[in-house]
Amino acid sequence: MKELRWGLLAAGTIAAEFAAGVDESKHGVLEAVAARSGDRAAEFASRFEVPKCYGSYEDLLADPDVDAVYISTPHPLHGAWAIRAAEAGKHILCEKPLTVSVSEAEKVIEAARANDVFLMEAFMYRLHPQIRRLAELISSGAIGEVRAVDVAFSYNFATPRLTDPALGGGGIFDVGCYCTSLARLVSQAATGQDVVEPEEVLGMARLDENGVDEVAFGLLRLPGGVLAQLACGFQLTQDDHIRVYGSQGQLYVPKPAWIHEMRKPKTSQIILTPEGGEPEVIEVEATQGLFAREADHVAAHLADRQAPELTWAETLANLRTLERWRAAVAR
Amino acid sequence: MKELRWGLLAAGTIAAEFAAGVDESKHGVLEAVAARSGDRAAEFASRFEVPKCYGSYEDLLADPDVDAVYISTPHPLHGAWAIRAAEAGKHILCEKPLTVSVSEAEKVIEAARANDVFLMEAFMYRLHPQIRRLAELISSGAIGEVRAVDVAFSYNFATPRLTDPALGGGGIFDVGCYCTSLARLVSQAATGQDVVEPEEVLGMARLDENGVDEVAFGLLRLPGGVLAQLACGFQLTQDDHIRVYGSQGQLYVPKPAWIHEMRKPKTSQIILTPEGGEPEVIEVEATQGLFAREADHVAAHLADRQAPELTWAETLANLRTLERWRAAVAR
Repeated sequence: MKELRWGLLAAGTIAAEFAAGVDESKHGVLEAVAARSGDRAAEFASRFEVPKCYGSYEDLLADPDVDAVYISTPHPLHGAWAIRAAEAGKHILCEKPLTVSVSEAEKVIEAARANDVFLMEAFMYRLHPQIRRLAELISSGAIGEVRAVDVAFSYNFATPRLTDPALGGGGIFDVGCYCTSLARLVSQAATGQDVVEPEEVLGMARLDENGVDEVAFGLLRLPGGVLAQLACGFQLTQDDHIRVYGSQGQLYVPKPAWIHEMRKPKTSQIILTPEGGEPEVIEVEATQGLFAREADHVAAHLADRQAPELTWAETLANLRTLERWRAAVAR
Repeated sequence: MKELRWGLLAAGTIAAEFAAGVDESKHGVLEAVAARSGDRAAEFASRFEVPKCYGSYEDLLADPDVDAVYISTPHPLHGAWAIRAAEAGKHILCEKPLTVSVSEAEKVIEAARANDVFLMEAFMYRLHPQIRRLAELISSGAIGEVRAVDVAFSYNFATPRLTDPALGGGGIFDVGCYCTSLARLVSQAATGQDVVEPEEVLGMARLDENGVDEVAFGLLRLPGGVLAQLACGFQLTQDDHIRVYGSQGQLYVPKPAWIHEMRKPKTSQIILTPEGGEPEVIEVEATQGLFAREADHVAAHLADRQAPELTWAETLANLRTLERWRAAVAR
């Protein structure tokens, strides 16, 4: 497989995680980084030994040595830069949410299609063996008929980005998107359907004075009779968890792979408790860090233009769910 | 204190728990039991050494040696028998929910007032030192500003009573009532208000073919900015729990006192985790079993006609919440 040369659009915290992932990947190499200022780009380039740095995203997109871009700007800028990247013929891995509206996501997908480039929303956790194993256990009937899923992803500190509506602030966009994605995955695994969307979405939130959701709860009715209970926010120190309840037992993931494994591969756990039985700890080994895996996944599916776990239909379905959840909590 | 002579209206499982509680109580004594059949009443009387048994509830209510009755008929019969007990001049401890509608509860309360008898809904868990300690910790600011509470009470087996709409079936009436009660208690402790009701109630359920809620989730917006996430049902083996999240930490009750302590007093736990700190296990000792405590609580507050933790206003507030939750999940 040819080496995939990456350009980074934005040079923040998550870009640093991804850069480290590319370094650890088998098929990726860092080619360039762009930031809002040349100094910031140069600092990042020096820290991660990136050959080129640019003080403008346009310049990076004009670089013929860049094959694929990783977009990690604030959420509201994802869409416009993804479209420009597609027009520049670059393959695209874009941080979640792909855009802040379904209609804009449709435009990004259209641009990827029209320019024949790869496009994937960076829900890296879906590629992790822990999550794959969870889905397999559900599909295989390990807990019988799936009745409910309870998923929480939250933390208790705010950054300016999170509290600014103009920057796509709020817990739902930042971490709630994992909750909707995971809940839908459970229904997908339970029903054998590729992509599902909720039949009903309810939500309630603590909104700050600017209308940003600091703490949000959600309820989804999903295909297969699966109810989902979601919790997220940046003012709530919960223990992140996934719990899936079925007629014949439950599955519990105490440390979901979305944040508890960033760089170094670890052995993680799924706890299966059969109805009336003792908990059984299922150890899941990971051989690659989460972002290295993601970078290699893009390389592996480049020719298909979509990754099987994160198709464009999957992205749209999750965004529509998020849009409904956000609308439900707005007062 | 004069001994309180109890008559039991109904002789089922929960009546047996209560009978054992009266035996262990300091101020209560079992005087009579009534069941739908004389044989059943006789069997119960022999098992618990109850001096008198009746094959009709009317006969028990006519017994001048009975001071107080414990009503544990199916839910839809609570109201009518509570009113007749009040009219017979008996003090009343009635299983939750007091009635299956708010309007009927108002009639029961009116009957208690008119006949000058004690009336309490049997939410025995509210009297347990574990729950009192939880409320004190919240009131004292142990976790800062309270933001959310997550409470679950469920199990995975059905009985004919639970699945029959005519018998007040469904998880919300059976165990969800504890969730609303506890969530409201958290808001009460956080705000210092005596009785609170949610500003907003949302709900979603798996309903069976008769419209009975087998699994129900709920969201409440409570005074003090407290959001509540509720889960209950009789088709769901969750780990019952209470989690209260505040700006400065969380409180976790792994085994809430509503079922994990029935007869024998136990030492139970509340786990306080300050923000960014290590969990601290707070041990709470109980000196009496739950039902013995309840029987003595009735005796102690007989002259007041209401118990301070479970006033008539409290009962009505919880029933209104349940009525809204049940309406929200009906499709």
